[in-house]
Amino acid sequence: MKIYDVENFPNPLRVRIALAEKNATDKVEFVAVDLLNGEHRTEAFLAKNPLAGVPVLELDDGTYIAECTAITEYIDSSFAGPSLTGVEAKERAVINMMQKRAESMVLDAVASYFHHATDGLGPALETYQNVAWGEKQGEKARQGFVYFNTVLANSAYVAGENFSVADITLYAGLVFAGFAKIAIPSELSHLIAWQQKVSQRPSIAA
Amino acid sequence: MKIYDVENFPNPLRVRIALAEKNATDKVEFVAVDLLNGEHRTEAFLAKNPLAGVPVLELDDGTYIAECTAITEYIDSSFAGPSLTGVEAKERAVINMMQKRAESMVLDAVASYFHHATDGLGPALETYQNVAWGEKQGEKARQGFVYFNTVLANSAYVAGENFSVADITLYAGLVFAGFAKIAIPSELSHLIAWQQKVSQRPSIAA
Ligand SMILES: N[C@@H](CCC(=O)N[C@@H](CS)C(=O)NCC(=O)O)C(=O)O
Ligand SMILES: N[C@@H](CCC(=O)N[C@@H](CS)C(=O)NCC(=O)O)C(=O)O
Repeated sequence: MKIYDVENFPNPLRVRIALAEKNATDKVEFVAVDLLNGEHRTEAFLAKNPLAGVPVLELDDGTYIAECTAITEYIDSSFAGPSLTGVEAKERAVINMMQKRAESMVLDAVASYFHHATDGLGPALETYQNVAWGEKQGEKARQGFVYFNTVLANSAYVAGENFSVADITLYAGLVFAGFAKIAIPSELSHLIAWQQKVSQRPSIAA
Repeated sequence: MKIYDVENFPNPLRVRIALAEKNATDKVEFVAVDLLNGEHRTEAFLAKNPLAGVPVLELDDGTYIAECTAITEYIDSSFAGPSLTGVEAKERAVINMMQKRAESMVLDAVASYFHHATDGLGPALETYQNVAWGEKQGEKARQGFVYFNTVLANSAYVAGENFSVADITLYAGLVFAGFAKIAIPSELSHLIAWQQKVSQRPSIAA
């Protein structure tokens, strides 16, 4: 299988962490997309993902799978090792919900702030900006930090006692927040301790 | 199990169709939320779902599961009948991706149009509106219609030859579009034929 992505970008990071957790990074061929020069908006790339985003997984039969939720679940079920999406129905539902919250409350909110309220990827790529919307989403991300700080006051990981895709998504969201200069207030000690702990996992620290 | 929702609202509709597809509607107790009077923003409801949205599933052990993707997957694995989320890894990945596209390109885009560019749920509930953002999302929904028309020119259902949660999400998106008065252009014949076909399923027509 192949993954089209840009190293160090936040959504690609989700997939790369999931692969490393499964010890499967070397099972995949990475193809660099020249996103900063707009390669993801060319016809050739839109045929792979009409939403013009990375990452995209290409299966050996030529099927393209976009969307991190889909790609990480595919990786999780394709390789051995502790489950990242849960096994029992209830555990899976909680992980699904918490991953969605990590997206909507943090990662996607930070992305909207970055693309709308800052220079984002620069004028050639940021063809529509709505500053007020971006600022509002930055506010939402800060509220998301507070929410997850509360969650992490009571459990070791975002969706309970085990590390899961919900942690990966929140972690990528905080990396993006750092890049976009949305600070995590120092009083959110549970969130900060969790971030520190997760950053030391071999899948991330290595 | 209990479901807190508002009958006929678009996200609750997703869960109700999934239950009906599984012949499990009578296995659930529905609890009406007085959303139009803001019940979903009270402290009691925020304890169930901090994002202040419906539907919310309550399991018999008291666990609350929000987010339609999590609820419909839980329903799918809890009741017998044809799978709505897929069985094999590749099939599951395609369904996951296509459901996400149905959300971001149609259902969520229509919702943003409705809440930002129209009166939405009225001044008491619409405490932040950004008209330009709403209009932009209405445009995005119209482009989403075109995308799914192309998809449905080549396959019976949104994620392939079988009905799935991706169809449910797109169908709910089109119901919402009708309510928000975003018209489906008559030349999108594949999308319209699919909508007609899906509307006749016993889970929806009944
Ligand atoms: N929902 C998508 C999001 C993908 C996404 O937005 N990726 C960013 C990179 S982190 C991108 O490709 N941006 C392109 C652009 O902004 O033009 C997923 O889960 O993969
Ligand atoms: N992502 C959520 C969306 C839930 C949602 O937005 N529901 C709407 C009703 S269709 C709602 O509760 N809106 C409350 C409001 O706008 O104040 C899901 O999948 O359940």
